[in-house]
Amino acid sequence: MDAGLFTANNVWMMICTALVFFMHLGFSFLEIGLTRQKNTVNILFKNVFIICVGLLLYYIGGFNLMYPGFEEGDLGILKFAGFGIAAPEGGMTAAYADGGYTWWTDFLFQGMFAATAATIVSGAVAERVKLGGFMLFTIIYVGLIYPIVGAWKWGGGWLDSLGFYDFAGSTLVHSVGGWGALIAIYLLGARIGKFSEDGKPKAIPGHNLPLAAAGVLILWLGWFGFNGGSVLSADPELTSLVLVTTSLAAAAGGVSAFLTSFLAYKNYDLTMFLNGILGGLVAITAGADQMSPNNAVVIGLLAGVIIVGGVALVDRLKLDDPVGAVAVHLICGIWGTLAVGIFGELASFDQFLIQLAGVGAVAAFCPLTAFIILFAIKKFAGIRVTEQEELQGLDIHEHGMDAYADFRMNQH
Amino acid sequence: MDAGLFTANNVWMMICTALVFFMHLGFSFLEIGLTRQKNTVNILFKNVFIICVGLLLYYIGGFNLMYPGFEEGDLGILKFAGFGIAAPEGGMTAAYADGGYTWWTDFLFQGMFAATAATIVSGAVAERVKLGGFMLFTIIYVGLIYPIVGAWKWGGGWLDSLGFYDFAGSTLVHSVGGWGALIAIYLLGARIGKFSEDGKPKAIPGHNLPLAAAGVLILWLGWFGFNGGSVLSADPELTSLVLVTTSLAAAAGGVSAFLTSFLAYKNYDLTMFLNGILGGLVAITAGADQMSPNNAVVIGLLAGVIIVGGVALVDRLKLDDPVGAVAVHLICGIWGTLAVGIFGELASFDQFLIQLAGVGAVAAFCPLTAFIILFAIKKFAGIRVTEQEELQGLDIHEHGMDAYADFRMNQH
Amino acid sequence: MDAGLFTANNVWMMICTALVFFMHLGFSFLEIGLTRQKNTVNILFKNVFIICVGLLLYYIGGFNLMYPGFEEGDLGILKFAGFGIAAPEGGMTAAYADGGYTWWTDFLFQGMFAATAATIVSGAVAERVKLGGFMLFTIIYVGLIYPIVGAWKWGGGWLDSLGFYDFAGSTLVHSVGGWGALIAIYLLGARIGKFSEDGKPKAIPGHNLPLAAAGVLILWLGWFGFNGGSVLSADPELTSLVLVTTSLAAAAGGVSAFLTSFLAYKNYDLTMFLNGILGGLVAITAGADQMSPNNAVVIGLLAGVIIVGGVALVDRLKLDDPVGAVAVHLICGIWGTLAVGIFGELASFDQFLIQLAGVGAVAAFCPLTAFIILFAIKKFAGIRVTEQEELQGLDIHEHGMDAYADFRMNQH
Repeated sequence: MDAGLFTANNVWMMICTALVFFMHLGFSFLEIGLTRQKNTVNILFKNVFIICVGLLLYYIGGFNLMYPGFEEGDLGILKFAGFGIAAPEGGMTAAYADGGYTWWTDFLFQGMFAATAATIVSGAVAERVKLGGFMLFTIIYVGLIYPIVGAWKWGGGWLDSLGFYDFAGSTLVHSVGGWGALIAIYLLGARIGKFSEDGKPKAIPGHNLPLAAAGVLILWLGWFGFNGGSVLSADPELTSLVLVTTSLAAAAGGVSAFLTSFLAYKNYDLTMFLNGILGGLVAITAGADQMSPNNAVVIGLLAGVIIVGGVALVDRLKLDDPVGAVAVHLICGIWGTLAVGIFGELASFDQFLIQLAGVGAVAAFCPLTAFIILFAIKKFAGIRVTEQEELQGLDIHEHGMDAYADFRMNQH
Repeated sequence: MDAGLFTANNVWMMICTALVFFMHLGFSFLEIGLTRQKNTVNILFKNVFIICVGLLLYYIGGFNLMYPGFEEGDLGILKFAGFGIAAPEGGMTAAYADGGYTWWTDFLFQGMFAATAATIVSGAVAERVKLGGFMLFTIIYVGLIYPIVGAWKWGGGWLDSLGFYDFAGSTLVHSVGGWGALIAIYLLGARIGKFSEDGKPKAIPGHNLPLAAAGVLILWLGWFGFNGGSVLSADPELTSLVLVTTSLAAAAGGVSAFLTSFLAYKNYDLTMFLNGILGGLVAITAGADQMSPNNAVVIGLLAGVIIVGGVALVDRLKLDDPVGAVAVHLICGIWGTLAVGIFGELASFDQFLIQLAGVGAVAAFCPLTAFIILFAIKKFAGIRVTEQEELQGLDIHEHGMDAYADFRMNQH
Repeated sequence: MDAGLFTANNVWMMICTALVFFMHLGFSFLEIGLTRQKNTVNILFKNVFIICVGLLLYYIGGFNLMYPGFEEGDLGILKFAGFGIAAPEGGMTAAYADGGYTWWTDFLFQGMFAATAATIVSGAVAERVKLGGFMLFTIIYVGLIYPIVGAWKWGGGWLDSLGFYDFAGSTLVHSVGGWGALIAIYLLGARIGKFSEDGKPKAIPGHNLPLAAAGVLILWLGWFGFNGGSVLSADPELTSLVLVTTSLAAAAGGVSAFLTSFLAYKNYDLTMFLNGILGGLVAITAGADQMSPNNAVVIGLLAGVIIVGGVALVDRLKLDDPVGAVAVHLICGIWGTLAVGIFGELASFDQFLIQLAGVGAVAAFCPLTAFIILFAIKKFAGIRVTEQEELQGLDIHEHGMDAYADFRMNQH
């Protein structure tokens, strides 16, 4: 292959890697912004931990586990190549991936994805999870569960053989994280004060909405890399289409969530607008390269409605999800995955059933494994802080510091 | 064309698109930082609304309206192709734009520009504009006025035929937004407390200067894409020159505004420094590809002086512009447009007159249309919140939430 | 050379330039976050000043001074070409730098580096340095000292002839800044209240940990450009390896510092985690292109331990470094430079001695010149604010404004 094309492709993939890395700041800001100031250091610590440990784990084993080069239908884990990775013969040349990128670009791009699944859980369990238990969960979920599911499709496993399509991970990343989040908040229970005695949910307002909004805009920016890089080259036709479908779905999701919540609650709700944008982004992720821009707008519009309903549903179930992770990542992840069978190039009833099968497989495997891991941690180490720690804040108890030492705070 | 070159060009244009998108976070941070905390959610809501709706409107009609492929001198609006766009035959190949980018890259890059004009207005009207009225104004101004003016030059219309030069939009983006801002603050009136009874302006301090400064640095970063992408390819010679002229003008603008305000007011004024950087950026935008780096430094130095004078002038006129949008975007936009006739490759007296004609045309069309739109909205729906809402803050009244729920605030 | 390859290379270098520029926001956020709110405007002002003035100085003279094209062993300063630069014949073509980038890209990329050295000092002297004195120091240190040392190696001077290796500046950037920081905090003295009467250090908590964490993530992102761009082309093999070694060292540094400080102090210390990431980044910088990923992990792990020890050592020496700049930039810079002789492609005892010689040369030149400059400024203009100014905060005294006007603060 032409050196210019190989180089341009690899440049694009490296930039996309950087953008996906930057999403971690987006997640951090969003989680901080939507929760209380007394748990801010804890959230930052968790997120920084996830990035660093996630990347190291992916280096130690995850990358091999996820892309084992195994035969069709093989389970991946069986061919786990052990600790440490090294570029294979020719891995740094245009021969490696049809000139799309080098082996190390491949590793780093995929490694940045890996941490995302745990970050999604992090937001949902904020303000009452025990740090040690969460770190343990992260290590197992990112180091083992995420690459196993990833191998089913992106590693060339059985879901891939079946014809399942998930372009950049509505299911493989977002639902994997979303299922973990759902099980975790079920096992953890709600924050003190989230539900009144008669079971009515009470809003616990976030303490820094500028950071929450910045988080969403940074995530949108990062999605340029998340979806744009999933083309696995800089092919002008596909990458530019993907950026357009991604952005239009985000915009449509935001507007739709805002309008839906305005009609439902007579309020200009910023957080619903923001979550609508994220819902649109998650939903387009499964088929960003298969959809026309018109399709993308429709998928986004529906995602916005789903977000408003999903947030209400989680409340109704007496689950406490401070950042709306279940509605955004799980429910919209499922919606986006199914949408591949309904809209776009691949749409057909057969494809819809295959998509449903993929959703179902992940819906069986992830909640089960997440439950086993979390239940074991709960049993042996504990996953929830004490009532006193929760009331006074995790920052003081687990970290011995305030996030905003100079500011006077309201007590709650 | 060589596939490597086409791909490298398109990669650059997509990155520039991402950078221009990121400018919206810069604008949001700047507007928040320079205003009071009680209106923060409202500002965030407006900005998120502008991005989403701006992009959708540009998709629905703006792109067609602005680039109609019409005959010379034609008014653009007449050939408005109706709702929805689709890539034309060959639009995704190197044949579309001399190999600079694809049709969808073109749409997204231009779409990110479109929302900017309304964002400029957003800052100026902050803290007292009625949300519904502003949203309506945004829809018309971004969906109709911006593409019409854009078509005059970038769509190949009459200003283009005349020889008017505006590389990346000192006039077509910044002045269009700036005129809207000027008319809007004239019709809105000043914030309560901005002018004492004898007409003296009083500073209403911004509530979050770290975010304001971050906003300006993010905008500077975004300008790498705004100006760098306006080369419409990744041509190494032109793009690298443009980044240098852009950055030097920004640096010179900042230093000059700081020194000017230090001499005038004996104070190290951070906000003046920041607005000087923005003034330099706006001023270089019209001719970033035509100027030598020396020219760029001079244009920036003068922009810094103009900023300090411009802010004082707006105060003198008893207009209330919380973020200095008129001085930055309108006055420096005009300065930069005229500078194309004074410095650089195109400098000549004839060119200066043509530049003046372009400035004049926009100075006739934009204020008039902005006035008509805003006056009609004022008449029928209202553009200003009630005194009570303004005093207590728009966040509580329009959104029912606080931006910083856990923090104790001073009352003002 | 093929136009596609030249264009792709130059695109990469321009993006890296943008990322290095963005590091200035990272530094600003980090410095603000780890200090008290009453000095926030001052820190922002210093950082914005450094960016703008640093770039202008590099344009006026620094670039010529640092890359004089002189004979081997020549001192650089002797061939200082005077004020102003212009692209040489062929400087904008692929002939200039083996097709890696154009002359103007070269200038801007190097110019973004130049300001960094002063920014490092800025963090260390925060909260008590006199603004005028600091600005003067910045001008001399960035305009003269940094390019002279840079010329020794990157300009093809005597350290280069000797075989000294410093890929992206563990010594040439970070230690140069770190030595300046060390001398400055020695001459300045500690902040009031930092050491109790019996000499025990007391923690002065930072006021905004979300911004501090964001700063570190932004710096990590920026390092993609700092190290990735130091390849001086987009060569897929080298650039992708460099991003991997950079990211793994950062992750390993963070985890190692967290674990070390946890073992030492039984505390989940977020700031130590963050500084560990930075220590890993600084340490890998000297040899990011020479190390295997395994090497990078080891270098990072050791950097994390060094950070925890380094911070304690600075405290023991009764030096007051609010952001840990000496431990991060100086000590880890030295560690990384020496590591080139221990690990990776160049490792040998001879190379280790050469690396030591380079470290020693900078350890002789920079502290000496920094001392002379700062001592002279101290003598004739003063470098420290009055006790009253320090207690009440530099924002009010030097800038007449609050960073957070609407928030209620604790007094300290």
